[in-house]
Amino acid sequence: MIVVMNPGVSKEEIEEVEKRLKNLGFGVHRSTGENRTIIGAIGAPKEDARDALQVMPSVEKVVIISQPFKMVSREFKQERTSFNVGGVEIGGQGVVLMAGPCAVEGRDAYLEAAEAVKKAGAQILRGGAYKPRTSPYSFQGLEEEGLKIMAEAREKTGMPFITEVLDQHSVEVVAQYADIVQVGTRNMQNFKLLRELGFIDRPVLVKRGMSATIEEWLMAAEYIVSGGNSMVILCERGIRTFETYTRNTLDISAVPIAKELSHLPVFVDPSHGTGNWRWVAPMSLAAVAAGADGLLVEVHPRPTEALSDGAQSLTPEKFQQMIELVEKVAQSIDRSLQPAV
Amino acid sequence: MIVVMNPGVSKEEIEEVEKRLKNLGFGVHRSTGENRTIIGAIGAPKEDARDALQVMPSVEKVVIISQPFKMVSREFKQERTSFNVGGVEIGGQGVVLMAGPCAVEGRDAYLEAAEAVKKAGAQILRGGAYKPRTSPYSFQGLEEEGLKIMAEAREKTGMPFITEVLDQHSVEVVAQYADIVQVGTRNMQNFKLLRELGFIDRPVLVKRGMSATIEEWLMAAEYIVSGGNSMVILCERGIRTFETYTRNTLDISAVPIAKELSHLPVFVDPSHGTGNWRWVAPMSLAAVAAGADGLLVEVHPRPTEALSDGAQSLTPEKFQQMIELVEKVAQSIDRSLQPAV
Amino acid sequence: MIVVMNPGVSKEEIEEVEKRLKNLGFGVHRSTGENRTIIGAIGAPKEDARDALQVMPSVEKVVIISQPFKMVSREFKQERTSFNVGGVEIGGQGVVLMAGPCAVEGRDAYLEAAEAVKKAGAQILRGGAYKPRTSPYSFQGLEEEGLKIMAEAREKTGMPFITEVLDQHSVEVVAQYADIVQVGTRNMQNFKLLRELGFIDRPVLVKRGMSATIEEWLMAAEYIVSGGNSMVILCERGIRTFETYTRNTLDISAVPIAKELSHLPVFVDPSHGTGNWRWVAPMSLAAVAAGADGLLVEVHPRPTEALSDGAQSLTPEKFQQMIELVEKVAQSIDRSLQPAV
Amino acid sequence: MIVVMNPGVSKEEIEEVEKRLKNLGFGVHRSTGENRTIIGAIGAPKEDARDALQVMPSVEKVVIISQPFKMVSREFKQERTSFNVGGVEIGGQGVVLMAGPCAVEGRDAYLEAAEAVKKAGAQILRGGAYKPRTSPYSFQGLEEEGLKIMAEAREKTGMPFITEVLDQHSVEVVAQYADIVQVGTRNMQNFKLLRELGFIDRPVLVKRGMSATIEEWLMAAEYIVSGGNSMVILCERGIRTFETYTRNTLDISAVPIAKELSHLPVFVDPSHGTGNWRWVAPMSLAAVAAGADGLLVEVHPRPTEALSDGAQSLTPEKFQQMIELVEKVAQSIDRSLQPAV
Repeated sequence: MIVVMNPGVSKEEIEEVEKRLKNLGFGVHRSTGENRTIIGAIGAPKEDARDALQVMPSVEKVVIISQPFKMVSREFKQERTSFNVGGVEIGGQGVVLMAGPCAVEGRDAYLEAAEAVKKAGAQILRGGAYKPRTSPYSFQGLEEEGLKIMAEAREKTGMPFITEVLDQHSVEVVAQYADIVQVGTRNMQNFKLLRELGFIDRPVLVKRGMSATIEEWLMAAEYIVSGGNSMVILCERGIRTFETYTRNTLDISAVPIAKELSHLPVFVDPSHGTGNWRWVAPMSLAAVAAGADGLLVEVHPRPTEALSDGAQSLTPEKFQQMIELVEKVAQSIDRSLQPAV
Repeated sequence: MIVVMNPGVSKEEIEEVEKRLKNLGFGVHRSTGENRTIIGAIGAPKEDARDALQVMPSVEKVVIISQPFKMVSREFKQERTSFNVGGVEIGGQGVVLMAGPCAVEGRDAYLEAAEAVKKAGAQILRGGAYKPRTSPYSFQGLEEEGLKIMAEAREKTGMPFITEVLDQHSVEVVAQYADIVQVGTRNMQNFKLLRELGFIDRPVLVKRGMSATIEEWLMAAEYIVSGGNSMVILCERGIRTFETYTRNTLDISAVPIAKELSHLPVFVDPSHGTGNWRWVAPMSLAAVAAGADGLLVEVHPRPTEALSDGAQSLTPEKFQQMIELVEKVAQSIDRSLQPAV
Repeated sequence: MIVVMNPGVSKEEIEEVEKRLKNLGFGVHRSTGENRTIIGAIGAPKEDARDALQVMPSVEKVVIISQPFKMVSREFKQERTSFNVGGVEIGGQGVVLMAGPCAVEGRDAYLEAAEAVKKAGAQILRGGAYKPRTSPYSFQGLEEEGLKIMAEAREKTGMPFITEVLDQHSVEVVAQYADIVQVGTRNMQNFKLLRELGFIDRPVLVKRGMSATIEEWLMAAEYIVSGGNSMVILCERGIRTFETYTRNTLDISAVPIAKELSHLPVFVDPSHGTGNWRWVAPMSLAAVAAGADGLLVEVHPRPTEALSDGAQSLTPEKFQQMIELVEKVAQSIDRSLQPAV
Repeated sequence: MIVVMNPGVSKEEIEEVEKRLKNLGFGVHRSTGENRTIIGAIGAPKEDARDALQVMPSVEKVVIISQPFKMVSREFKQERTSFNVGGVEIGGQGVVLMAGPCAVEGRDAYLEAAEAVKKAGAQILRGGAYKPRTSPYSFQGLEEEGLKIMAEAREKTGMPFITEVLDQHSVEVVAQYADIVQVGTRNMQNFKLLRELGFIDRPVLVKRGMSATIEEWLMAAEYIVSGGNSMVILCERGIRTFETYTRNTLDISAVPIAKELSHLPVFVDPSHGTGNWRWVAPMSLAAVAAGADGLLVEVHPRPTEALSDGAQSLTPEKFQQMIELVEKVAQSIDRSLQPAV
């Protein structure tokens, strides 16, 4: 952390800042220039410390140099994190496809979708049992009933499944059924939930908040990893911008950046990221070309009948065509498609 | 809801859309133009229905005409909502000042702050017992201990207090102590929490999410009101934009707009909205001039010692000077300052 | 400027950076910490220098400490800038109202509008002769014919007028007629135009670019002032954000910030800033309460007949009601309304 | 265009709106629902018309259905536009690489860079003679001298070149030397410049404005094409968002969208789009995978000595490595690399 003093401050003011820094646990290194004094604060940067310094009238600005995340950083751990979920390697050389309908709407329809998704070539099933909905009057999901249906689909297809958890209260029940637990974009800074997910023995996929910086996203992962659960997947899903043609702006550059800053696997959700099935295939190819370790794709046998997010769902046929291209792009950068379970 | 068909679709395709609309519970009115057919769907708009229609290949776009919020709208209730909290009228003719430190850091310091804030002229105390922090390594609040300290301050000063709740799990304990329960910006779409707050007998202040549209903010309030709790305060606190000079961009225009769309009281938080105490006073005056019903201001006796958000906290002296100006601006638009308790 | 070296760089790498800095004209001050070396570069910050340093593999980041603007800064000139335009003081104690239709559409209509605006209480006329339009098929303005009509209106009403210039080519003709020359939001970084405006003897109002930071806005003003023309007015007019309810998000906080950073007068355009006449009055009051030196308001005798921007235009009656409130708010913060010419 | 009337308006109000629409040249089709009347306005949508309608008190909202662009749309022209520039096909099956330093800084350095870029495998040279700089104190380019140097490099290497024009005044001189004329992000709505570029016999590359919607970007191209010059290339270069880790957020989804809406070739500039050479290669691969017809890449033999944008420049070696990957990704989606001239 660097504290830049205002021009013309007195020796006493400088010493006051240095004393404050030492009290906060920092080592101090003063650098006196012609116009300004700059104080290097040696030690881990802290939000609280920056705030405390910034308010001092003699201080012009406080610059944080080191990154605030630790355990998720590549400085902490050089080699990439990978782990196995029901026979599927996440974060390895093979690109992983998680696919399925947005919401579990009923048993038969979900089982049909699961079979279709498996046949098309996905390795992991997705589906929502607890749905975060903007309106209190919208369909909110089948809850535990939905989890049971997904567990049945797993039994029938052999595919592990991922599903979203909305609050720390339901972590236990969700983790009991699901192979991977998902944190949605609206919950990326639900710190109570993140804390709870640090205690479970299940991989967690953390979607980037729709207005979260890459740093905040990594800090959300840090909550989970620092709690003891190192099986975290980062998932870019589009950020909120002024553009209205797409539902969100899918930030593909977050993929190589997150992979440089962190050792965690990085996935992309092109369905929410664009909001329109037309752009799902090209954005999937782009994500893989940029280095994504996997994709999270909405697929529905009959998108026009979906209770939510139909507009962004691929049919199994279109999904299968896309997978063929994904495989080719993966191979062109010396990766492959993860084999089916 | 209006469904715009693609140019050149067949009679069968039009009928298919109309059938789908009827199945979804809409009345249907077809309008045939030279190039396009437009179908008016009569009935309450629904996210799910729009999604379902949008995906049909014969449909170009679906436009939602009516607003999705109901009970918080002025079409539902013309007269403005106001209620009394410990002797202070919220949403009335008088502008209300809620003030205090960001976090409760200890008993003595908080009681001192409470007295200072009362003396300066605030009517309601604020303070954080449960703190949402970006980093798992930052101070997270004193929790129930903090609630007790605020209750003691209420006893000593006679001022009701507002504090934030982070999850539905803690709603009961927070509501047991606090006079007003606050939903923070990161929780504005924590739908489980919002649902729970619909069941309590305490006013709820809903901060606008930092990337929430005005419509989504009103939908968050709709969750609470539709659950049975009509004592909701909307609070604008800055949105996330590209500008880095301020912590957020305080959207003052949200004040008159929210007051035109809804009957609920609208407050402004200029402290988080700017992130710098220098802009708190001018933005407070702006908020009141634009019609805000109250302000939520961070005040700390010694901002340089605050454990969080010191940079945006006013001293009690500066706060008192600001109140004098706030009162004058309020009077200039035929309002007043709410009298102290 | 501060150059933060990567952890673990060699003595030679540090010396290479210092040599580069000296070649670029900086004084150098090295500060050696436990993990990192930080080099203070003493001298004026430069975009080019930062870029050159940032690319060196031994450098982690380059932080610019000082502001890049000079002549428009309050460090350069403490007292506020004010000047007289046809009898109206800009940047003084009195709040100035510039008003009129968006575009000059014809002689009689404009003269009628000018009289109405004068009667309502504005001091300066506005009107567009050269219109920047998103579509090549939209009305583009009457050009010099429009300037002549505004000059005639000035003669008839005694009010000076402001109008927009679109390119450096037309600066001469516009400056020949107009009392104040306006740079629109889309031209805020048209550096050729800004340069040209540094050479004229007319005040220039610089609208903030819709995606410009406050710093970039001040740099645009710096182009003009550094060219020799110190009569510059800054005008906030809304920035582009994700919110779609308003045409732009009017950043009222830019007012106190620009007034703290710069000695130039700061105006606000609530008409483009909101895009809807309903919010023009409350946002005008907010702007004045926050310290704005003036307002730029669209007023049209018959908004439904306007060829452009009718939706955001006030009628003269509504404008007059608004002025009465503006005056009261101005007085409440010890300012006044500038008297009519 | 659809005009949605307020609930409960009278028959006279509806007729007034219809009369207004007819006067504006629209055909009219009324659709009477239970609560609302909706009027379809048949004819080309117009900004001015929407504005004029929107202000009528009986109108709730006006929805534009058709796209405002015409000649650049795929409804106007189904087959993709391609053209030949000095032997290089733009918009064809082969991906085109334009590369070179940000600015022309001197003859020898530029010739060296040109040879290096050719050897690495680019087909078109780039370089800036007129530089738009945020600060009036930064290097502004060699102007015509720079054009001459690029013409010499073309002679020596056989590669056509692209360079930016800043204002309509310089269009003639730039078009006299350059093979492709570039419109920068800050000039995307410099309508005077766009108009002038409609009259020349040179291809024009239009960079997306950093806060421009896709629709506005296509409207900028429409200005040029409607003026008579159909050789336009669209170039995505990153939009301004809240994320600060990258200089801009490169919107890769704009590639498939622009290609669906328009018949024009679509390029991507990953150098400005990210601001850091580290992300240029992965984002180039992503762009090509998403369907980009070409790339515009900053390459500098010694980035640390560049006078501008060194931080985002690749060395020729890194550029060559990238090209090899670009070729593989192109082949994986059945495209190829355009052969060198």
